[in-house]
Amino acid sequence: MSERAQKLEALGFPLDRLPTPAASYRPLVIDGSIGYLSGAIPLDGGQQLAFSGNVPSQLPVAEAQRAAALCAANLLRVLAHELGSLERVERVLRVGGYVSSDPDFTQQHVVINGASELLVAVLGEAGRHARSAMGVAGLPLGASVEVDMIVRIKE
Amino acid sequence: MSERAQKLEALGFPLDRLPTPAASYRPLVIDGSIGYLSGAIPLDGGQQLAFSGNVPSQLPVAEAQRAAALCAANLLRVLAHELGSLERVERVLRVGGYVSSDPDFTQQHVVINGASELLVAVLGEAGRHARSAMGVAGLPLGASVEVDMIVRIKE
Amino acid sequence: MSERAQKLEALGFPLDRLPTPAASYRPLVIDGSIGYLSGAIPLDGGQQLAFSGNVPSQLPVAEAQRAAALCAANLLRVLAHELGSLERVERVLRVGGYVSSDPDFTQQHVVINGASELLVAVLGEAGRHARSAMGVAGLPLGASVEVDMIVRIKE
Repeated sequence: MSERAQKLEALGFPLDRLPTPAASYRPLVIDGSIGYLSGAIPLDGGQQLAFSGNVPSQLPVAEAQRAAALCAANLLRVLAHELGSLERVERVLRVGGYVSSDPDFTQQHVVINGASELLVAVLGEAGRHARSAMGVAGLPLGASVEVDMIVRIKE
Repeated sequence: MSERAQKLEALGFPLDRLPTPAASYRPLVIDGSIGYLSGAIPLDGGQQLAFSGNVPSQLPVAEAQRAAALCAANLLRVLAHELGSLERVERVLRVGGYVSSDPDFTQQHVVINGASELLVAVLGEAGRHARSAMGVAGLPLGASVEVDMIVRIKE
Repeated sequence: MSERAQKLEALGFPLDRLPTPAASYRPLVIDGSIGYLSGAIPLDGGQQLAFSGNVPSQLPVAEAQRAAALCAANLLRVLAHELGSLERVERVLRVGGYVSSDPDFTQQHVVINGASELLVAVLGEAGRHARSAMGVAGLPLGASVEVDMIVRIKE
């Protein structure tokens, strides 16, 4: 297991708890050295949703940050599974973070920091990215957070 | 007419019912072999919106799937018009699907399957993509669904 | 100061009023000749938010257009700061525009025209882009508008 995979597992995210895609799409499409990752929701293996409902009325901000970290971990699990090793991630380029939000909630950036910080904890400088965070009206299966990503991959 | 264009028409989407852009942007920007497509709404030719309102209170899920398919068809119409032929689409890389959602709606992925499945029906394996689906608070002109796309184009 | 920077300043957006990032991300990540810009909110220098609240109940459409223009100006400020000169922007490829929207608001495209038109006013043909506009449930710090961008950069 690579050093990055060990870091991910040490942070509480076993590599093999890979989510099962819920719909008609691919978790990762690779175009040359660019990888487009589908939006990940906080599934904890298979199709078991670990965090659901609007933030903060149904899920407090601190929990939503953990949900965002789980989304990012799921994206890393997809990359590890599809690329063979997380060492092949050269750089995270862009992250989109979507928070199922109460009408007056304005701390989406704080929630999505949970994802951003996990990426840096596991990938180091290669995990630093451009990012957009926003509050949405709802997410698939009632998820509290969704995160997607564009990455550069080493040959 | 190309085989793919014939498939699109056979599915009920005549190639020439191209939407008119409603605002200050281009329907497609090509950068080398990558094409960035603007978000398409379910216009049925010109500026006539075929599906509007929140899902599911104002538009049931089955209708919203048809709206998503029409959005995808409009993206294919743009590609056919701008590239000369749909045969020049090498691969759909990433799809974004946005559903104007009631506060408690959680089946956005089911709605956006309408777009994903049309892309595969017309383009085959080249139509398989990474995807993010989410519920939004509202869309231009009151559209129920918006879909955008990044594609690889053959020279 | 470059001609483009002069145009931006003449439109009322001094180059040096660069926003401070509010969270764990980079304002711009460059991958080869592609630049991914983080979502910009209508900060008027530092962390002072100039436009907040839902459109149109808390911010009328005409003001929201100004907010969208300020977001676009902030993206241009980031590019000028990080690239040394706005002349290095070869083309704006894709713009995402997110409007904090009342439930029944359907003019997000009109709001985001404020951003699109500023880009063309400053960059000319190089500022024309593909675009997706949508209404969201809320934005970081209570911003009324957020805009992100993918650009091609000259070496």
